[in-house]
Amino acid sequence: MVNRVVQIRIGRANSLDTGDADCDCSITLVQIASTNILVDTGGAWAGAELVQSIGDRAGLESKDISLVVCTHGHSDHVGCLALFPNATHIVGRDINLREKYFSTNLRPQDQSINKCIATVDAHGKLKITAPFMNDVVLQVITTPGHTGSCVSVLVQSNEEIVFEYNDGACATMNKVAIVGDLWECENDDDFWPDYSEMSTLQRQSRSFVLKWKPDVIVPGHGPAFTPVE
Amino acid sequence: MVNRVVQIRIGRANSLDTGDADCDCSITLVQIASTNILVDTGGAWAGAELVQSIGDRAGLESKDISLVVCTHGHSDHVGCLALFPNATHIVGRDINLREKYFSTNLRPQDQSINKCIATVDAHGKLKITAPFMNDVVLQVITTPGHTGSCVSVLVQSNEEIVFEYNDGACATMNKVAIVGDLWECENDDDFWPDYSEMSTLQRQSRSFVLKWKPDVIVPGHGPAFTPVE
Repeated sequence: MVNRVVQIRIGRANSLDTGDADCDCSITLVQIASTNILVDTGGAWAGAELVQSIGDRAGLESKDISLVVCTHGHSDHVGCLALFPNATHIVGRDINLREKYFSTNLRPQDQSINKCIATVDAHGKLKITAPFMNDVVLQVITTPGHTGSCVSVLVQSNEEIVFEYNDGACATMNKVAIVGDLWECENDDDFWPDYSEMSTLQRQSRSFVLKWKPDVIVPGHGPAFTPVE
Repeated sequence: MVNRVVQIRIGRANSLDTGDADCDCSITLVQIASTNILVDTGGAWAGAELVQSIGDRAGLESKDISLVVCTHGHSDHVGCLALFPNATHIVGRDINLREKYFSTNLRPQDQSINKCIATVDAHGKLKITAPFMNDVVLQVITTPGHTGSCVSVLVQSNEEIVFEYNDGACATMNKVAIVGDLWECENDDDFWPDYSEMSTLQRQSRSFVLKWKPDVIVPGHGPAFTPVE
């Protein structure tokens, strides 16, 4: 079965004259075998649009999502968790299913980069705190900086991945990085530190992702882009 | 009108034999004049119980909540934001209503304690980034440490506040601190640093709250308690 990454929504962040912002995050669907994974949920008012989109774009209902990964715990990323009761929820380094919290063997004060906290293999099977394996298609890894406990989702396959842009255009590729606000958008070099709790750490997390050589990066508040060498 | 604080749920955190945890957070309702404020929402599976409780305890529906404050962005605190579409949402230092993000004039890397990011006055009026005023009943202040952007809710009034425990018992008091995971529970001195991103900062935030001399502290994962001098 072909692995598929679908841009459900392109995130945005526009300054308003009042000093406030018009803002919501990127939402991405990943389909591996028969497992459906949502990366970030948008703010609490994104629900109706989100449910409509996963229906239109992938023929899915909320109940069909079995893993939700929120890259971090900011309000524009976690607002719609309640819509996905059948899913395991990962929010930053938290992993839970109903009342059960899974241990990741990571201390909150451990700010290391690229600790793998969950994987999905080629058969769509989720493992918590599994080490990296060659047959793994999706990894949730620690990429701290924007907050102390941010994570990114790396999708890779030797088989081609179909990447479906928000407008429905498709491309095939082997490596997709869905990074939340590790990047605000393409060409954010001048301002991403303004939104960072720990900019030195975030710079290192960004370098790590670039070294992984993704074909495409999906940032938190802008269109997907191909990183320049 | 009498100000009222209602313990909708007492949070818990129990270790399981597997190394995982059975865990969910305290949920508190504050009523000031005709304004209804919810502090923390629980994990995403708390919704049905939460809606039932605010109905039973206060005769309210979800639509009647006009401010939700999540003390920080961990999954067991933010899970039910989508149930309160009429409310302004505060999650740590994020403040938003629909797509609009309000500026707090705080940088993410500013880890100061007791910056006031929102207030509710005696008439129930919400102000964003207002300074402390004598007629203010509720303040949302920065108390970082557990995460870099945690907040606490301080409720105070020269008129008595009715504090209604989870079992329905009532007491009257003048100062209530609802602190999220700044305290995990009473007598957590031996283990709260294990759950802290920045324990030195969290220790300072705890001292600040104690110096404010609350009659009761509502912790993230245990019953309300009266701090010892």
